[in-house]
Amino acid sequence: MRLITLSLALSFSFPATAFASEPPQEAERWGVWEWSLTGPTNGTPDRDVTLTAHFRQGTTTLPVAGFYEGEGVYRLRFMPPTLGEWTCVTTSNQPELNGRKARLISIAPSPANHGPVRVRDTFHFAYSDGTPHHSIGTTCYAWTHQDETLQQQTLRTLAASPFNKLRMCVFPKNYAFNATEPPRYPFLGSPGKWDTSRFNPEFFQVLEQRVRDLLERGIEADLILFHPYDKGRWGFDRMTPAEDERYLRHLVARLGAFRNVWWSMANEFDFMERKTDADWDRLCQIVAEADPYDHLLSIHNGLRIYNHNQPWITHASIQNGSALAEHGRGVLYRDVYRKPIVFDEVKYEGNIEQRWGNISAEELVHRFWIGTIEGTYVGHGETLRHPENILWWAKGGELHGDSPARIAFLRQVIESNPCQGIEPIDKWQESRMGGRPGRFAIVYLGRESPSEWTVSVPLAFSKKKVTVKAEIIDAWGMTISPVEGSFELQPTSTYKLTCPSRPSIPLPGRPMQAIRLVALSEGS
Amino acid sequence: MRLITLSLALSFSFPATAFASEPPQEAERWGVWEWSLTGPTNGTPDRDVTLTAHFRQGTTTLPVAGFYEGEGVYRLRFMPPTLGEWTCVTTSNQPELNGRKARLISIAPSPANHGPVRVRDTFHFAYSDGTPHHSIGTTCYAWTHQDETLQQQTLRTLAASPFNKLRMCVFPKNYAFNATEPPRYPFLGSPGKWDTSRFNPEFFQVLEQRVRDLLERGIEADLILFHPYDKGRWGFDRMTPAEDERYLRHLVARLGAFRNVWWSMANEFDFMERKTDADWDRLCQIVAEADPYDHLLSIHNGLRIYNHNQPWITHASIQNGSALAEHGRGVLYRDVYRKPIVFDEVKYEGNIEQRWGNISAEELVHRFWIGTIEGTYVGHGETLRHPENILWWAKGGELHGDSPARIAFLRQVIESNPCQGIEPIDKWQESRMGGRPGRFAIVYLGRESPSEWTVSVPLAFSKKKVTVKAEIIDAWGMTISPVEGSFELQPTSTYKLTCPSRPSIPLPGRPMQAIRLVALSEGS
Repeated sequence: MRLITLSLALSFSFPATAFASEPPQEAERWGVWEWSLTGPTNGTPDRDVTLTAHFRQGTTTLPVAGFYEGEGVYRLRFMPPTLGEWTCVTTSNQPELNGRKARLISIAPSPANHGPVRVRDTFHFAYSDGTPHHSIGTTCYAWTHQDETLQQQTLRTLAASPFNKLRMCVFPKNYAFNATEPPRYPFLGSPGKWDTSRFNPEFFQVLEQRVRDLLERGIEADLILFHPYDKGRWGFDRMTPAEDERYLRHLVARLGAFRNVWWSMANEFDFMERKTDADWDRLCQIVAEADPYDHLLSIHNGLRIYNHNQPWITHASIQNGSALAEHGRGVLYRDVYRKPIVFDEVKYEGNIEQRWGNISAEELVHRFWIGTIEGTYVGHGETLRHPENILWWAKGGELHGDSPARIAFLRQVIESNPCQGIEPIDKWQESRMGGRPGRFAIVYLGRESPSEWTVSVPLAFSKKKVTVKAEIIDAWGMTISPVEGSFELQPTSTYKLTCPSRPSIPLPGRPMQAIRLVALSEGS
Repeated sequence: MRLITLSLALSFSFPATAFASEPPQEAERWGVWEWSLTGPTNGTPDRDVTLTAHFRQGTTTLPVAGFYEGEGVYRLRFMPPTLGEWTCVTTSNQPELNGRKARLISIAPSPANHGPVRVRDTFHFAYSDGTPHHSIGTTCYAWTHQDETLQQQTLRTLAASPFNKLRMCVFPKNYAFNATEPPRYPFLGSPGKWDTSRFNPEFFQVLEQRVRDLLERGIEADLILFHPYDKGRWGFDRMTPAEDERYLRHLVARLGAFRNVWWSMANEFDFMERKTDADWDRLCQIVAEADPYDHLLSIHNGLRIYNHNQPWITHASIQNGSALAEHGRGVLYRDVYRKPIVFDEVKYEGNIEQRWGNISAEELVHRFWIGTIEGTYVGHGETLRHPENILWWAKGGELHGDSPARIAFLRQVIESNPCQGIEPIDKWQESRMGGRPGRFAIVYLGRESPSEWTVSVPLAFSKKKVTVKAEIIDAWGMTISPVEGSFELQPTSTYKLTCPSRPSIPLPGRPMQAIRLVALSEGS
C-alpha cells in the first residue's frame, strides 16, 4: 500500500450531524467497519464508478477503495489499524458518492481478535497484538464451490482441527477429483459469455461469508487469486490484463478489511502458460499497492519458483515434493529469501495414483517435524480416496487421515516451547536441531531408531556451561516423557557442549523420536 | 557494461599514418591488445586524469577505460570480442591523451584461446567459442603475496592439477596460517600512511603477471576484490566509498582485457562489518557497468547469502558447509536463482582444528560428486597441516591431499558424457540422479554400499522405451567398468522405466559408486 503521511497535522473535524448517512460510530480495532452508500444503478458501475475513502488519523491517511454490491449499494470497508478516532472523506466520479464524510471510534478488540498476522523476526509470524502465530495450514482448494451442506461440514471439521490457515481458491476449479460445475460464477453472464465488467455479487458474498466464518474460527484465509485449473473451461485463467486488475481491485476492496486474509497471488503460477514473470510482478504490485493493510502476500509455484526476493513478497510460499523429506534442505530457502518460508505443498497424506498425493501419514508427519525444526512452516493436505470422491484437498468435508492428530500434537509441542520461533542452532552443521540459543533445543531423529542419544549441543547454544532438563517426544505416539533429573552441559571441545556426568539419554528405539532440552539456568 | 549501439552506421575512418603513436595493428580475438600512451607525470594521475577509448566496430561502441602505469605511461587494454576491424578514439581531460586514434584488426584466436567463459543454458558455463567449461575450482587466497619461488611452485602444481579456476585475493590476507607481511602493497605510501590516490604499479604488475600465467595454463582467475581478512591491519577492508570505487575501476581498466578474469566482489562479504548490503549492490554495479566485456561476476558469502537474484550477478558463488554433504540440497539453489551455482566453499580436505578445514579426502570427493550430479559446480581447497605452515588454501605451493586425483577422474567422467551440462532428470523426486533426458543419466549412491542397483529411471528420462548401456563408476577407486550388453528400459508404471529382462546391476558393495546409463537409441 501507499501510506500517505502528512508532515503537517491537518485540522480536520466536523459535527456528526453533517453526515449524509449513518455508518456505525464504533468499530473494534482490526474489525470490519462497513459503510453502505447509495449511488447510481445505471451504466457499468464495477468498471466505471470510482469510489475511494481517505481514512485519516493524525498525520496518517489510508486510501480505501469501495466496491459495488449491486442494486445501487456501494460499500466501503475499513479495518482500523489503531485505536481512537478515524475520519474519512470520499472521492468519486459520481456526485452522490463524492465528498461524503464519516467518523468512527476504534475501540479495543474483543479477546479473540489479535489483528492481522505479520512477519516477525525475519522468519516467523505474529498477530498484530504480538501473539505468536505458528502457521499450520491445510488445503481445500474448491470448498466454497461445493454445496452448502458440505461447506458447513468443512467448517465444523476445521474448527476441530489443528489448522489455523486454509488455502482456498477464489475461482472454481477444473481438475482431477473436482470437475463439477460450480453453483455460481464471479461474473455476470453465462459460460462462454461472461460480462467481466460486472461482478456477480452473490458469488463474492458467499466467498466473503466463508472468509468471515474462518475468521470466527481463528483461521487465516490464504486466498488463491489465480490458478491454472481452468484450462479455458471458464477462461478465468486467461483474462486480459485489465480484467485481471479489475478483479484484483474488487477483491482487495471487498475482502481487504478482513484481518484473516492472506493473498496468495496464484497456485502453481508457472503452470499458467499465458502469463509471464513480468505479468506476475505487475499483478503482485497491484495488490500490494491497493491493499491499505499490507496483508501477507506470496505466490505458490509448480516446478519453477517465483523470485521471493521481490520486495512485495512477504513470505515464500513453496511447493517442493522433497525438500522436507530429509533434514538440511528447508533451511536453505530461509538463507536465500530471509523471509518466513511456508511449505504449502510437500505432498499430501493420501492414496491416489498421483505421487504428490500418496504419501503416508507417517511421512507427512515426518515432514512436518523436519520443516518445523528447520525453522520453516508446513502445510497439510489430504487426498485419501473416498466413495463419493470427496477429497479434503479439493472439496473439504471430513478429515479421514492419521496425520491431523499428530499435527495437533506437534502444535502443542511448539506452543509449549519456552519461546516462539524456531531457529537453527548451528546452521549448516547440526541440521537435526532447532530451537533458540540459551533457551531450548529440539533434536528430531527422523527415520532413525537409535537406542540412545549422545547428549551434545553446539557451542552456539551456549558459550558457557548450562543446565538443561530433557524430554523425549514421540512424534507419532504423541507422548512427551520427561527424563528425570537434569544435565549440566559443558564446553568440552571447540564446537560442542556435552555432559560428562550423564553422557547419553536412553531412547525407545522407534523412529520419529525427538529430544527437547530446556535450559534451567539461562545459557549465553 | 553499457553497450552503446548506434542506430546509424557512422562513417568513421582515417589513414593509418594519422596515428600519433604506433599501437599494434593486430590482436587475436579475445586476446589482450595494448596501447601505451605518454601523458602527464605531475599531479595525481590515478585520481585526476581521465582516459577512455571508444572502440567501434559497425554500430557497436565499447567504452574502455585506461589506467596510469607510472612514469608518464598510460595504458589502454582492449579484448576484441569479435573478428575484424576495430577503431578507437580517446577522450581525456589531458590534451596529450585526448582525441588519439588507433585501428586494429582482430584475427582468429590461437587454438588454446576459447574466449571468456559465459553462462550457458541458464545453469552452466561455456567459453565464448562454444567450448563447454565444466568449472572445477580451487583456492589459494594469498598466493600472489608469497615469495616468487613459492608462486612459481604454485603455478607448476596448478598446471598438473585438474583445476581450471583459482580463487585468489587481490588484497593481502591477515588470517590464520597467513599473517606474514606481504612483499608489496596496492597503494603508495606505507602501512598506516597509504596514499590511496596513487596505486603501486609494481603490486598490480605482479598480480597481472599471475593472471597472465593462469591464462596461459587455461585457468580462470576468480579474483576476490574485497575480503574481511584485514581487520584494520592495513585498512583495505575499510576504505571510503570513493577509494573503493577508484580501486575497482583501476582493476577493471588493468585486468578487464584478460579473458580468464572472473570478478568475485568479496569473500565472506557479510563478515565485513563496515559495508552494508546497499554498499555491495553499489560496488557490484560499478564493476558490471565499467566492465566492457561482462566478465562473470558474483559475491561469496560467510553465513548470510547475497541476493543472487540481482541482475548484475551472473552466477551464485556459495559457501555452505553442509549443502553438498547429502543429496537433494544443492538443487534448491538452482531453483531459486536460475543461474549457475558454484559451491566455492564446501569445507576443505584437511586436518586443522577449524571444522571448515578438516574433512577427509573421501568426504570432499563425495561432495564433489553430489554437487556435480545436482547440476552445480564445486570448488576444492586443501588445509592439510604442513611443517612450514604452507597450506595450499592460503599460500599455494604443493598439493598433498588425496582428493585432487579423484577430482581429476571426476572431470574425466564429466567430459566423457555424451553431452555437457548435468541437469536433474526428475527434480524433487530422484535426487541421486542427474544427466540429460534421453541421453544419459548418472546415479551416485554416495555413502551407501549396496550389492546391486535396481534398474529404474524416471519417465522424465524417456516417455517411450529406450536402450541404454551401463557403466559402474568407482568415484574413489577411479575406475569405469562397462556392464556387458545393454538394457531395454520400458515404461512399467506411472513414473518409472524399468528393465524387466535385466532388473538389476550387481555392484561391488563399496561406498562412492555411481552407475552411468547412456542411451544407445535416443529416448524421448
